[in-house]
Formats: sequence, C-alpha cells, structure tokens
Amino acid sequence: MIVEVLAVGTELLIGQIVNANAATIGRRLAEEGHDAHYQVVVGDNIERIATAIRAALGRADAVIITGGLGPTQDDLTREGISEATGRQLEFVQGAADRLRARFASAGRTMPEANLRQAERPLGAEFLPNPKGTAPGLALVHEGCQVFAVPGVPEEMEALLEHEILPRLRGGGQGIVKSRLIRTWGSSESRVAEMLDDLYGPANPSIAFLASSGEIKVRITAKASSEAEADALIGPIEQVVCERLGSRVFGVDQDTIEVIVLGLLEERRWYLATAESATGGLIASRITSVPGASNAFRGAVVTYATDLKTGMLGVPESLIEREGVVSESTAVAMADGAATTLGAEVVVSVTGSAGPDAQERPVGTMIIGVHTPEGTKARTMRFPGDRERVRVYTATAALHLVRLAVTGEWW
Amino acid sequence: MIVEVLAVGTELLIGQIVNANAATIGRRLAEEGHDAHYQVVVGDNIERIATAIRAALGRADAVIITGGLGPTQDDLTREGISEATGRQLEFVQGAADRLRARFASAGRTMPEANLRQAERPLGAEFLPNPKGTAPGLALVHEGCQVFAVPGVPEEMEALLEHEILPRLRGGGQGIVKSRLIRTWGSSESRVAEMLDDLYGPANPSIAFLASSGEIKVRITAKASSEAEADALIGPIEQVVCERLGSRVFGVDQDTIEVIVLGLLEERRWYLATAESATGGLIASRITSVPGASNAFRGAVVTYATDLKTGMLGVPESLIEREGVVSESTAVAMADGAATTLGAEVVVSVTGSAGPDAQERPVGTMIIGVHTPEGTKARTMRFPGDRERVRVYTATAALHLVRLAVTGEWW
Repeated sequence: MIVEVLAVGTELLIGQIVNANAATIGRRLAEEGHDAHYQVVVGDNIERIATAIRAALGRADAVIITGGLGPTQDDLTREGISEATGRQLEFVQGAADRLRARFASAGRTMPEANLRQAERPLGAEFLPNPKGTAPGLALVHEGCQVFAVPGVPEEMEALLEHEILPRLRGGGQGIVKSRLIRTWGSSESRVAEMLDDLYGPANPSIAFLASSGEIKVRITAKASSEAEADALIGPIEQVVCERLGSRVFGVDQDTIEVIVLGLLEERRWYLATAESATGGLIASRITSVPGASNAFRGAVVTYATDLKTGMLGVPESLIEREGVVSESTAVAMADGAATTLGAEVVVSVTGSAGPDAQERPVGTMIIGVHTPEGTKARTMRFPGDRERVRVYTATAALHLVRLAVTGEWW
Repeated sequence: MIVEVLAVGTELLIGQIVNANAATIGRRLAEEGHDAHYQVVVGDNIERIATAIRAALGRADAVIITGGLGPTQDDLTREGISEATGRQLEFVQGAADRLRARFASAGRTMPEANLRQAERPLGAEFLPNPKGTAPGLALVHEGCQVFAVPGVPEEMEALLEHEILPRLRGGGQGIVKSRLIRTWGSSESRVAEMLDDLYGPANPSIAFLASSGEIKVRITAKASSEAEADALIGPIEQVVCERLGSRVFGVDQDTIEVIVLGLLEERRWYLATAESATGGLIASRITSVPGASNAFRGAVVTYATDLKTGMLGVPESLIEREGVVSESTAVAMADGAATTLGAEVVVSVTGSAGPDAQERPVGTMIIGVHTPEGTKARTMRFPGDRERVRVYTATAALHLVRLAVTGEWW
C-alpha cells in the first residue's frame, strides 16, 4: 500500500522542532511492508492543508496526517480535511460528553475551546486517544484511507500502533526487512563500483550511506514473512561480504567502538590511547560505550611536544631527527603509553590537523598501533577542515586497532 | 520570498534518519525573513523527484533541494532537476579536473563514478563545497531560484550560509541581522522569564535556543541597512546582557572553548585536563579550536582507578575514605595533573555517567578546577542518558574553568 505522511504545523516549517513523527511513522510503515513516495509538511493554513491533502488523495492509498487537532485557533486539520473532501464538519454530542468527563475526572473544567475536538467530517469516525484529549480521525474518501492524529509524539504513536497500522494490514502485502553491512577502507563510489551489478530495482535492493569515513551498504527485502525476507537477504549479504572482505567490520547496530571493545574483551586485553592531533577524541569515543571500563585503561593527550618526551618517553633525539609528525614518533608514543598506562594495546596519533601545517601538509595524520605482537604505524592523508580531519582520523585509528588486534594488519 | 525545501532520500521516507536538514533550513529561512509554505520529502526516484520539483516551481520563489548529489547510482537529484526543467545535463571538464585534483591531494585516485558530480543541468552554476566532493548547484528556471546541496549536514550548512542565503537576500526588502548572546548557568525557561517583556513580534525580535546546557538568546532586526540594524539591536543587547549578568559568556561565534582559550592566553596560563567519566571529551573539544596549542598542554584520562593513583598521585587512602566519585578526589586529580602535565590551570572530572551507577546516582558529576589561586570542586547532577550527561558535563567543566580563571567562582 502507498501511504503518504502529512505533518501540519508552522513550528515544523520554521524549524522550531524537527519532524521526528514523520521518521517514526516512515519506519513503522516500512517495517509493515508499505511503500512511501512522499512526506509533506504544511503550516497552519486551511487552504494549504487542503491542497496537500488533495495531492495525497490523488497519489496514495492512505494518508496519515499528524498535528493540528488541538483546541486552539491555529489547529486547522479538521477544517483542512473538510475543505479537501467537501465533507462538512458535524458536532458529535457524545464526543463532547466524553471530553467533558475526561476533564472532570482530572478535577478540571473543560474550556469551551475544546468543543472543537468533538467535530468530525461527515462519514469520519473518532479514534480513541488513550494519552490525551484530542481524538484521532479515520475516514475513507474515494477509496483512500485518511487518518488524522495529534502531533504529540506519544499520542501519535499510540494511535499509530493501535488504530492505524491494524487498519492498514490485511492487504497481505507482507513485510520489509533491512540489513546494514558496515564497512571501512574504501570510498562510497569504490564500494558502489564493486557492487554495481547488484544495484537496481531488485528485491532485495541495495543502497549506500556514507558517514565519517565509513560506508554502509543497506540490503532491503520485501517478503511475506520474516523467514522469507531473511532467505532473500542471506545470499546477497554473503556476496556483499565476500566482495568487500576485511572492509566489512560489523552489521546493523555494531559501531566500530563496540566492535573494538568486544575484540579486546575476548582477548582480555586493555586499550589505551596516546593522542596528539586528535586531542582525546578517540578516548572520548571509546568511553561513550557503556561498560568501556572492561577493556579501556585511559589516555594521555600529549599536545605539547615536551609531554611526548616527559610522559611517554619518546627520545628527544628521535623527535629532532625524524620530527614530531613521523611514523617513528607514533611508534614511540604507542610503546611509551603501553608502559605508562599499563595496556596491551595502544593507538597513537600524531599529525597536522590544520588549519596551519605542522611539519607535514595539513591532513597528514600518522596512526601507530602497539599490540603484544609488535608496533606499526601508517601515514594517512585526509581532505577537509580541521574537524573533519580529526573525526576521520579517529575513525581510521579505531579501524587500525581492529585490524591489528585480529592480525589482519600484520 | 516563498522558499520550499525538498529533501531527497529513501532513508528519510523509511525513517532511518530524521529530516534535521529541513528544520535547520526552515529556521534559517525564517530568521532571514522568508516564508515557507511546504516542505517535501521524496525517495530516490527520478520521476517523483521531478514531480516534487515541478510542484515547487509552480508555487515558490525558490526551492532548496537537499541530498541525492553523491556519486552513486541512487543519487538522482541532478537527473530529477533535468527532468523537471527540460534542461539536459552537461559534463563540465573543469569540474571533473577539480574533483580529480581534490582526490589527488588526498593521495587517492578518483573512482570513475565521481565523474557524475561534474554534470549539471544546462544553465546551472556549480556552488563550491568546502566540506566535501559534491559541488552544489544553482539555477534560475522560469523566475524560480533552484538550489541543490548535498544532504550531509555540515556540507549543506556551509552551502546554505555562504551561497544560498546571500543569493536570497537582496530583492530590495532590506536586510536581516542577528546577534547571538550566549549564556550558561540558567535554564531556558528561567532565561525566557527574565526577558519575558522583550518577547513578542517586535523588531528587533528575540528568540531562545538551547543546546548542550547553554542557552542562546538571538536578537534579530529587520532594517534597510546594516547600520540601522545595529542601531536597533544595540539597546536590546545591552538590556539582555545587564539582566543576565555573568551568565553571558560570549556573542555570535564565541564558543566556550574559544573564550576559555582566550582568557588563558591573556594570562599566559596553560590548561590541562584530568578526566575520568568524560573520557577525553573536554580535551577533544578544546583541541577542536585551531591554535589551541598556545594555551593547552594536554590531558590524562584516568579511566581505570589505579591510574588516578599512579599517574596523578591521588592518595589511595583518600580514594578508600572518600570514594572515587568525591570532591576530594576531583581536587586531588586536578592538583596532581597540574604537576604531571605542567599546567597552571587544570579541570578534572570524576562521576557516574551511567547506565550503571558508580558509587553515586547516575548523572552525579564532580568537576574540580585548579588555578594558581587554589583548587575547588563542585558536585553537579545531570539528567538524561550517558551521552547527554557527558556532553553537559564537558560544557559545565569549560564554564567552571572560565569562572575560576576570571575569579568569579572564587
């Protein structure tokens, strides 16, 4: 079924709030196997609400309207539906009585303004709202199912789960299931190239998402059951993973921080970081994971050069000979921190994050990893501004820890 | 001017990500005095992208399209614009050369797929993207200004501020100028209460924005010239600053990191951090500022308790007696780090970030500050999940450094 989501509220248009309702509804619709072609946001204006509803009636099998059902003058969804469908609003005494009783049970007198919530377009039905005063609305107009629910997220969610989704089921369209394959080490376009022949309007379909240097491949299957969806996804997932090899580090919710901590815990190894250019960012990301203390000792941020010597024992002569931004210094930092912080694994970073170059061109970042097997360093180059360079470097550092610990880098 | 925002991406329709871009753009358009009637989201489908663009062309003076400019097969915004406007895509050799040079400067070979980013509809102009490879597009079609920018928030924001908003100004309607007053130490509702009589549809208007524990007051003036706008903003700014007193720490682009580094540099003092629960987040935020090395020494993240003793010299007996999450431990960490790291000022953090409580209830965070005048600690309590507690704590820590250095905390 094609379902369109229409959110009503000027506060959305001017960015006072983010349209999280549309994402929630979109996700649930996808999980239930429905298709979405458009989402629309419109302000508190009867004519424009009606225009948006007419557009949805013309191209979707169902439309879910959020917001604009409150008691005040700028709540215009009821009027907008009436205008779009040519169905007059009728006042329902029973609904008014229920509203009054609800206020009374809370020890309050109902303001007269709330009587508007007892109005509905002819032919519509009220949907009981367990979480608030405004009832939802359901109407079938010229074959299209129209629903209206309040914009308050918990009220919207209750009506979505208990009233709307059950009414949209039954078409026997089945479910939609996704699998996220997480990769690092190649660009989005390189990954897309490697999977080019899998792309297209097939079932399962694949799509690509990039963030902070990682590329995610999403495999989405439509099927009549979860088992059938899994059977469709399985073979494609295998092909994707085979082609991308050690680029793949996790699936679904496995972030690199979680993966690295898991690999260390398995080995009963502890991690520490020795950071210069990233300034504590790697440690901060690792410790964002609950339970990080099971595999993380701590960090030394040696932003001043003399601290590299003083706290990590990097020989002054080495820095003079090779420079601060050098693989030798990264190795010495990692080895030094292993002793100072008492860790089996250390990742170190030294580099030139910009905007001014330090010894090497801006974006040159050197990552060292110490493990019980030895210590190595790699020189990398990242484009973009200081913040981007730091974030991509922290991501790369975590991935090099992964590869070093599993022995793939050695 | 009526401006419509169109977001392209199936990941939005199926709720994998929330359409935060639309809120950001909507807010900035409102601040600049533009009107918004509709926002639309459409999936990765040429026909539907073209349909949405046609609808916007017919009812808005400008349309801003986000997303779908990447290098892969599912990036279809260029094709959608071409389809909607009947303008063929042309390949621009100069743009291809720039892309190739950008990859080369990062030591990488450009995948052939990226050549698509050198295509533009006839008559369109490329908008340089300082934060990524995909250039934006600008086109005037039948009197409507059409812009396309990548969906990556930082790239979208850079192009919005530096390319799109300046082009939407002008029209002779005068200018809009804003002044941001940054505060910390009181809640949004408390700040709003203190400025209640200034609120309303006046010129200048004021608005409140909350982020990570800081409250920003934005004063916006519409005027025919910059000088006139300044004359409108000046008196209100003075009233706001007088009423909010030492809560105000900066204006416009003055982040707390920049302010703290400036205060230290003036005094030729150096800062270090000794972090436990924040795990390097404070150091990471300080070093995100270019030139931080002029006033920042480094950090020790003593996540494991024995490192607090070993690296910072916190007496074991003190930890046994008072606990790790105590003001005495925070003071000892700050004093120890001042010696270990050779810094005049140290901020230390120990606390219980959650999800499981450590000694004290989740959200209890203790911040210590060492300066040449002495060392103090303050116990604070933050609501929310682990990440929120950590971010709010880092912000509070930076503000306590500010107050300690200026003598306001003493």
